[in-house]
Amino acid sequence: MSNQPIQAFEPPYLMAVFTSVRTEVEGGYPETAARMESLVKEIPGYLGHENAHTPGGLDITVAYFRDRAALEAWRTDPEHRAAKAQGIKEWYESYTLHVGTVERSSGFVRGS
Amino acid sequence: MSNQPIQAFEPPYLMAVFTSVRTEVEGGYPETAARMESLVKEIPGYLGHENAHTPGGLDITVAYFRDRAALEAWRTDPEHRAAKAQGIKEWYESYTLHVGTVERSSGFVRGS
Repeated sequence: MSNQPIQAFEPPYLMAVFTSVRTEVEGGYPETAARMESLVKEIPGYLGHENAHTPGGLDITVAYFRDRAALEAWRTDPEHRAAKAQGIKEWYESYTLHVGTVERSSGFVRGS
Repeated sequence: MSNQPIQAFEPPYLMAVFTSVRTEVEGGYPETAARMESLVKEIPGYLGHENAHTPGGLDITVAYFRDRAALEAWRTDPEHRAAKAQGIKEWYESYTLHVGTVERSSGFVRGS
């Protein structure tokens, strides 16, 4: 994943904010996370995603989609659903998901 | 800031996702960040915020507001505006801001 923020898209678009704290169960997690990262890119209308992780603390992933159909395709993807079920069973201590429509976006890149 | 994700609020509410990468300029930043963290809590309709930071990499802050008036109060706060101007001048290599309305939210807490 790039070290720079993804640039703003033209509104409206959708974003899904997933904030989580992990359990200490590691088994299968990195492989599944890598698989999800590659799988979501196949969704038509997927725009991008970014992640930040405080060591030992909160993880925030934000995924961006062009429209509701794209987000629904990802939400209902069978492999993604199976990963979520496994996450509840083993990998997440807690998480919160916020899904909404972006109405305004802006950005700044130094020297550009 | 808590080590757990903020729990979901009752939609609709607003969220502002701020993703950034810092410059190496440190002067004044921690004090201003702490001041902003305390200042935003005074905004009527401010619901909470959370942050994750990958060492040497991306920082993601998400702030939640009950309604547009609350978000506008924060956006136009004079001290916040001054901090943003200083951030562009010195502290940020790049950033992107995505502001939108949350239409759906959910969460999970292990053992609850």
